[in-house]
Amino acid sequence: MANVVVQSIERTPADACASLGNAGVATVHEAQGRHGLLASEIRPVWRGAKIAGPAVTVLAPPGDNWMLHVAMEQVRPGDVLVLAVTSPSDAGYFGDLLAVSLRARGGVGLVIDAGVRDVAELEAMRMPAWSRHIGAQGTVKETLGAVNVPIVCAGQLVAPGDCVVADDDGVCVVARADAEKVVEAANQRLAKEDDVRKRLAAGELGLDVYGMREGLEAKGLKYV
Amino acid sequence: MANVVVQSIERTPADACASLGNAGVATVHEAQGRHGLLASEIRPVWRGAKIAGPAVTVLAPPGDNWMLHVAMEQVRPGDVLVLAVTSPSDAGYFGDLLAVSLRARGGVGLVIDAGVRDVAELEAMRMPAWSRHIGAQGTVKETLGAVNVPIVCAGQLVAPGDCVVADDDGVCVVARADAEKVVEAANQRLAKEDDVRKRLAAGELGLDVYGMREGLEAKGLKYV
Amino acid sequence: MANVVVQSIERTPADACASLGNAGVATVHEAQGRHGLLASEIRPVWRGAKIAGPAVTVLAPPGDNWMLHVAMEQVRPGDVLVLAVTSPSDAGYFGDLLAVSLRARGGVGLVIDAGVRDVAELEAMRMPAWSRHIGAQGTVKETLGAVNVPIVCAGQLVAPGDCVVADDDGVCVVARADAEKVVEAANQRLAKEDDVRKRLAAGELGLDVYGMREGLEAKGLKYV
Amino acid sequence: MANVVVQSIERTPADACASLGNAGVATVHEAQGRHGLLASEIRPVWRGAKIAGPAVTVLAPPGDNWMLHVAMEQVRPGDVLVLAVTSPSDAGYFGDLLAVSLRARGGVGLVIDAGVRDVAELEAMRMPAWSRHIGAQGTVKETLGAVNVPIVCAGQLVAPGDCVVADDDGVCVVARADAEKVVEAANQRLAKEDDVRKRLAAGELGLDVYGMREGLEAKGLKYV
Amino acid sequence: MANVVVQSIERTPADACASLGNAGVATVHEAQGRHGLLASEIRPVWRGAKIAGPAVTVLAPPGDNWMLHVAMEQVRPGDVLVLAVTSPSDAGYFGDLLAVSLRARGGVGLVIDAGVRDVAELEAMRMPAWSRHIGAQGTVKETLGAVNVPIVCAGQLVAPGDCVVADDDGVCVVARADAEKVVEAANQRLAKEDDVRKRLAAGELGLDVYGMREGLEAKGLKYV
Amino acid sequence: MANVVVQSIERTPADACASLGNAGVATVHEAQGRHGLLASEIRPVWRGAKIAGPAVTVLAPPGDNWMLHVAMEQVRPGDVLVLAVTSPSDAGYFGDLLAVSLRARGGVGLVIDAGVRDVAELEAMRMPAWSRHIGAQGTVKETLGAVNVPIVCAGQLVAPGDCVVADDDGVCVVARADAEKVVEAANQRLAKEDDVRKRLAAGELGLDVYGMREGLEAKGLKYV
Repeated sequence: MANVVVQSIERTPADACASLGNAGVATVHEAQGRHGLLASEIRPVWRGAKIAGPAVTVLAPPGDNWMLHVAMEQVRPGDVLVLAVTSPSDAGYFGDLLAVSLRARGGVGLVIDAGVRDVAELEAMRMPAWSRHIGAQGTVKETLGAVNVPIVCAGQLVAPGDCVVADDDGVCVVARADAEKVVEAANQRLAKEDDVRKRLAAGELGLDVYGMREGLEAKGLKYV
Repeated sequence: MANVVVQSIERTPADACASLGNAGVATVHEAQGRHGLLASEIRPVWRGAKIAGPAVTVLAPPGDNWMLHVAMEQVRPGDVLVLAVTSPSDAGYFGDLLAVSLRARGGVGLVIDAGVRDVAELEAMRMPAWSRHIGAQGTVKETLGAVNVPIVCAGQLVAPGDCVVADDDGVCVVARADAEKVVEAANQRLAKEDDVRKRLAAGELGLDVYGMREGLEAKGLKYV
Repeated sequence: MANVVVQSIERTPADACASLGNAGVATVHEAQGRHGLLASEIRPVWRGAKIAGPAVTVLAPPGDNWMLHVAMEQVRPGDVLVLAVTSPSDAGYFGDLLAVSLRARGGVGLVIDAGVRDVAELEAMRMPAWSRHIGAQGTVKETLGAVNVPIVCAGQLVAPGDCVVADDDGVCVVARADAEKVVEAANQRLAKEDDVRKRLAAGELGLDVYGMREGLEAKGLKYV
Repeated sequence: MANVVVQSIERTPADACASLGNAGVATVHEAQGRHGLLASEIRPVWRGAKIAGPAVTVLAPPGDNWMLHVAMEQVRPGDVLVLAVTSPSDAGYFGDLLAVSLRARGGVGLVIDAGVRDVAELEAMRMPAWSRHIGAQGTVKETLGAVNVPIVCAGQLVAPGDCVVADDDGVCVVARADAEKVVEAANQRLAKEDDVRKRLAAGELGLDVYGMREGLEAKGLKYV
Repeated sequence: MANVVVQSIERTPADACASLGNAGVATVHEAQGRHGLLASEIRPVWRGAKIAGPAVTVLAPPGDNWMLHVAMEQVRPGDVLVLAVTSPSDAGYFGDLLAVSLRARGGVGLVIDAGVRDVAELEAMRMPAWSRHIGAQGTVKETLGAVNVPIVCAGQLVAPGDCVVADDDGVCVVARADAEKVVEAANQRLAKEDDVRKRLAAGELGLDVYGMREGLEAKGLKYV
Repeated sequence: MANVVVQSIERTPADACASLGNAGVATVHEAQGRHGLLASEIRPVWRGAKIAGPAVTVLAPPGDNWMLHVAMEQVRPGDVLVLAVTSPSDAGYFGDLLAVSLRARGGVGLVIDAGVRDVAELEAMRMPAWSRHIGAQGTVKETLGAVNVPIVCAGQLVAPGDCVVADDDGVCVVARADAEKVVEAANQRLAKEDDVRKRLAAGELGLDVYGMREGLEAKGLKYV
């Protein structure tokens, strides 16, 4: 792995990010054919946030957050920091001070396959963050990594500029090149779900709304 | 395992369920002699719900929620859906749309040894749910399972119609045949605990309230 | 392990505890040179509590909370109960009644490398607790342990009277003999962080605030 | 849970057990319609054992192996001890001495949803054992449980006398009443697999042996 | 994700694979700058195997091994099957029959981020396999996936034709384009390590062999 | 934590270590009153080793094995290296080369609350090692730690010179000051167990050998 900082990246356009964020993780994941979902161990640090934005990617060693400081300079308004580690770590890479800095840069949130700390402060300032761990263990600044290279974060490939969508259900990544197509598919799903929701609320069964009875019978389901 | 849907089940009476729900999981578990508690990995999707009702049981394959749709037709007002999987899965079997449907049927909650999604919506609509995972991973509708057969959910046997009690402490199942007896025992415990609570609040020690000093000395505890 | 209850312990002074609690876990951990942090699996039962106080230590067998009752008699106003187990257990050692008793004794919280129950009640009465598990599984009162002996809790040595600091980030222990020195170091950190926070909020980068650019170049970081 | 020892149980016949043991866990599990498989965390203490026999069931408290001693008296030649716990425990319930006793009684192995110890000795004497943990933590003899009642072990219901099959793949339980039928189905599978194995070894593809190509095309698989 | 089978892929040359396999996972991982290592949860099914070969990649749904049959047709002598799942599963995707088929095709091993079964047979026939789980749970053949597309397996990106190296330490992937360069770097490491090994065996200390004393002193290490 | 290397430590005498090693982990743990057992996640890298010796302790940062090189200089014939980390890590701190060095120094084994690598080589050269993980992930040499200070390893306090006993059951530490007393107690247990083993092998039941029947009846056990 070269120790590089890529300074110029192409970002998913802001309107596509906004649409994907509005659709939310579960719908976006379905709309792009069920891929891009980060491992379910990545959970929101506090509940109720919902964001989407282009990824500024960070690859960092275990227990070392030096590259987060380097990455901060690459953040533009609307960006999401996404950090992967080269080896598992539950250390708190990101806390109150980096959150202040991220906000000052216009960044809208953090996704990290490691730990965060100062979580009471993060919640008080409403800085969205999704992490694998919460913990006060600090980090050193000794070893290099990389910024804005493709990374694998919690099982998914994230390229710089890809759109990262995150809410209480988890985190999903949409490749920049696919964003427009996924927006369209997601909006179609939302419209359809709205209709289904009304029918279900009125007491119709999914068995009928989705026309499942024939398929179940064909597979051999018996009612007794 | 036969792929069947049992349509007629005997349910724990509503008043027994109400009493058990009022007592709560910890008290019910003690009152029935310390069995029936689901594994502690089953946690509430949002905090503050407290329910009890007869189980409509579902046995489903990994990553396949077809049987939840089938089970919905069997739900009557007051019921709790309880889903076990034939192999572990962190997929989100239950989300916003099924919650709307469950509410329309009068169901009061869900217990699932797998994942749920749309958790922000579940909390907003106050639909109680206890699960092992939270995640946006969708499910397919390809393979049959069974509805209203006895299942093992998170380590406990749950028969259709058994009373399922769930709150922030977890989930406990009471066999239908035992419900009346457990209600009585639980109410006795509640009365007794009330008395103990007052004495402890007044500064008495459990050592004296429960008369433990002699037993401790007999076992050889030394004060130094 | 002798089955003893040590009745007379030296406590970290109240003003030192207050200062450490004000600084919080992450700052205290850094200030004492990055040790004393309990494993990150120990999490607050409810979010928002922040405490510090001298430890009354408890060593208990798996699934047996007899010693908690014994320890309660040793609690003085301001103390924190800290319980370690001799073998892992997810049972609920501490619930509503013991919380009432702890409050009556003036205790300010609990740290436990096992489970707690009645968590809705704990939150309602604002009794701070940090635990590895939440669960309704009850405990027996059959086997002795020890009170106010040095214990290893979640990977850290805790001696009776040591100051235990706990907040949403986790739990950190400060040896009684080190408390004064750590208070001083923590206060210095807080002052410095305040200054850094202002500069970062104004848009300066950590790269410049901390003077990192030279070090990064020396290690060979490339900008492309 | 009543604290009882059921002394008279009906056992799966020895010839059925022998046939099921010969088929092995994976085949038996398929042959009975894919149920009865214990959680995959239950692993052989040493590799290479393959057993089957009627279950003598034990329900025990965490960290307490008193009931194993009680159960030993109920063991007849060919039996398998199956132990479930009322709350998780990694203690070593079973070691060298109990293994000597089990062998003296004619028992052929142990399945335990907790820990075992003296594993070097168990391997040396070729005493088959499947467990969730290995560890030297001892147990107490303070609290009762039950023997030869239905238990849930690692997620599966095991009734006394049911046939327990175990090998390097894990553990599967066959209800006594189903044993004969499962033997037949398993033997059919073995015969069929033999034929398939020969064709595959000769270079034929599963795609052709199982006639999958049409189904794949119908689902829309594209070759590029 | 398109449901495709890519039939023509470029493979890492056999001699490069052989050299990488000879160097082993730990050395290859170092030689390519410490990336490409699969998560440490992926363990050999039996100890003592050591392989390297071009990857035939498989992306499969949870609990569904249909695509393994499809992939088998794409295997050429020397290839390694590498399977990732779209959602976690501990099912046994690969067993005795598929191993016979893989051997008949000339495949040298399997790496799978899920489960395998028939492990006694796999060991008896010396078919190397690395997996996250061992278990007898069978799979269905209902849902499509893809073959020979880039996948993320246990946290690492694996493209078809990349060289997969696996031994008792775990699994490492080398991009096809980097293979030659990594072979060279690995061979240099091996030569150097040989020299170091001799000096260490003769009683020299790493402190002197690697010239560490000055650096330690500069960082402030104190001898007392 | 001061970054120090303590060069002069008092070691548990060799004959006491030999006796404790002969007794084995399970017996030693019982003999000293059931404390000192490391967490059961610490497992032997290969099965069949059985060692005991004075601890040379190492405290190391996550993913950094610099201190192991420093510690090697402090190893004398018969010593056991025991490494704890300041934050969890699955990196491979110890491999083939360090094993060669450890052997050259006369060290008899390693206990590490992190990862090891080159495990095929460790087994081939019969170098005993107990670890939490196995993995090829390398480490850096950037941050200091300490050598021969008291550490908490896998939940137990280990002081330099304490006797560390390890076999297939796990690892147990005996404080140097207690060693003689524990040797005596262990030898008594061994003698007693020998006698019990003979009686059990002859078909007597533990119920009678240990005289348990009365106690069981007193607690209320019912035979039906």
